[in-house]
Amino acid sequence: MIFGIDKLYDAVNDKGHVCLGLDTSPEYIPPCELKKHSCKTDAVLTFNRELINATYDVCACYKVQIAYYEEMGLSGLSVYAKTLKFIREKGGLVIADIKRGDIADTALRYAKAHFEGDFEADFVTLSPYMGMDSIEPWLTHAGNKGKGAFVLMRTSNKGMRDFEYQELKQGGRLYHAVGDKLAELAGKNTGKNGYGAFGAVVGCTEREEASEIRKKYSNLFFLIPGYGAQGGAADDAALLLREGNGGVVNASRSILKAWSIELSGSGGDESNITNTFAAEAARRATLEMRDAIRLSSGINNEK
Amino acid sequence: MIFGIDKLYDAVNDKGHVCLGLDTSPEYIPPCELKKHSCKTDAVLTFNRELINATYDVCACYKVQIAYYEEMGLSGLSVYAKTLKFIREKGGLVIADIKRGDIADTALRYAKAHFEGDFEADFVTLSPYMGMDSIEPWLTHAGNKGKGAFVLMRTSNKGMRDFEYQELKQGGRLYHAVGDKLAELAGKNTGKNGYGAFGAVVGCTEREEASEIRKKYSNLFFLIPGYGAQGGAADDAALLLREGNGGVVNASRSILKAWSIELSGSGGDESNITNTFAAEAARRATLEMRDAIRLSSGINNEK
Repeated sequence: MIFGIDKLYDAVNDKGHVCLGLDTSPEYIPPCELKKHSCKTDAVLTFNRELINATYDVCACYKVQIAYYEEMGLSGLSVYAKTLKFIREKGGLVIADIKRGDIADTALRYAKAHFEGDFEADFVTLSPYMGMDSIEPWLTHAGNKGKGAFVLMRTSNKGMRDFEYQELKQGGRLYHAVGDKLAELAGKNTGKNGYGAFGAVVGCTEREEASEIRKKYSNLFFLIPGYGAQGGAADDAALLLREGNGGVVNASRSILKAWSIELSGSGGDESNITNTFAAEAARRATLEMRDAIRLSSGINNEK
Repeated sequence: MIFGIDKLYDAVNDKGHVCLGLDTSPEYIPPCELKKHSCKTDAVLTFNRELINATYDVCACYKVQIAYYEEMGLSGLSVYAKTLKFIREKGGLVIADIKRGDIADTALRYAKAHFEGDFEADFVTLSPYMGMDSIEPWLTHAGNKGKGAFVLMRTSNKGMRDFEYQELKQGGRLYHAVGDKLAELAGKNTGKNGYGAFGAVVGCTEREEASEIRKKYSNLFFLIPGYGAQGGAADDAALLLREGNGGVVNASRSILKAWSIELSGSGGDESNITNTFAAEAARRATLEMRDAIRLSSGINNEK
């Protein structure tokens, strides 16, 4: 069995920890580029391709949030499919941020939908609420095809305190119960680098618990949201890594809109900004983030 | 504010409690009908339309499980969109079974995706794991457009015991914590029949807790899975109703494959079965289920 998680481990070693989130809203695209297209979906696809071309050698993987495409209906989902295809043709790895979670037979159909065909991705995100019979059916497909998944464990939004943080009678919080089940599953399906085929989503916004989580779930590879806009910094994210690997850190807006952030710093005029400039700015932002995380993890950036 | 839940309440009074699940897998279609089409997606759409034509006056609503369409890629999602449109044009109500659950900004985009445009539905299903900030953003759209949602609370699969059944330190189980938050939200957004804009998914497979759940969450309208194949019977479902209303009971395979079930009873030959026969059999199965639930709820079937 080949596990996608081993490919991701190698990508982290080679290209760093950045997981670039292609949550591409049309308003993130430079205005003069947006105007060139009669429909928004074309503008999103062109922008995505330029950004991927400029970053695929400096980020571990891409995460594509399907909601941003679904919002644009069928033509949006066609752009979603084309974006995934473009990443994979470049040799990049892609996480489909779809947060699916449904019972056995339905889970199998979802796995088929997202591990092959139009929407083929390397990884998916899953939601555990309904229990492990909504997670396990994905494993067969994952093992056969070198795929993987990240299951929501402790996210980075405020609402996580509503249920994920609930203290359980058996001890620990709900997210621990999820982590325990995932660690158990990982123990039965371990890749060559010691990580389970399925990892967990653990946000880097709650610093105080990070080390405990990393130690307790040493066989889980983490998809780490919460960096940047949500308040997480490089040294918060580094607490969730293990020996310089074991996790990818997601950033979306800070990279997609790097052109706009640079511009507001310099007081420049946005009407002349091209996708080429936006892609170069995205690369600069990715490199800066990559180096900051490597530095915080004690990895030599000359590597 | 118009709430979709009031439309559903009226539909239950007029047409009964059946929520017909259009989880249409190509293998549920009579073989000779499947053969007529060069692609499976066309066969699914034709089958769906015939079933809808034969049942829209005897079921409260339809539930369309998106996984069955997503599995067929972009052309599958086009059939999903067309199925939703066909139901709505007939004046039927449709629940998009999408189980979304994501943070604020993403939730807004999902709401736009499923409450308007290509994938417009009347209701969606949502997963609460990430907390109430993944649920509440849907409310604005729901209220403005007469839509609604059903949030996973206590489902009908075996895996529900993994997390939904976890006993909490504060008392009760996780599903109670979800139910409490939903009841609180319902209290602030109540329709004219006393039910909140957003209801809950509560399976009818665990009989012993049904009455307690119905009593405790009197302002929540229930979407009730678990009927038939999963073991729930009419009198189990009836325990989750309130004064003959307050819930819809989902059945999928037992209705979609009613033609096959009838056939195996009579020993007939499936090679001659048409969609017309399948649609008539679906109607018979729907009526039988409708009348059984009405009887168990103490409602006169002559109504």
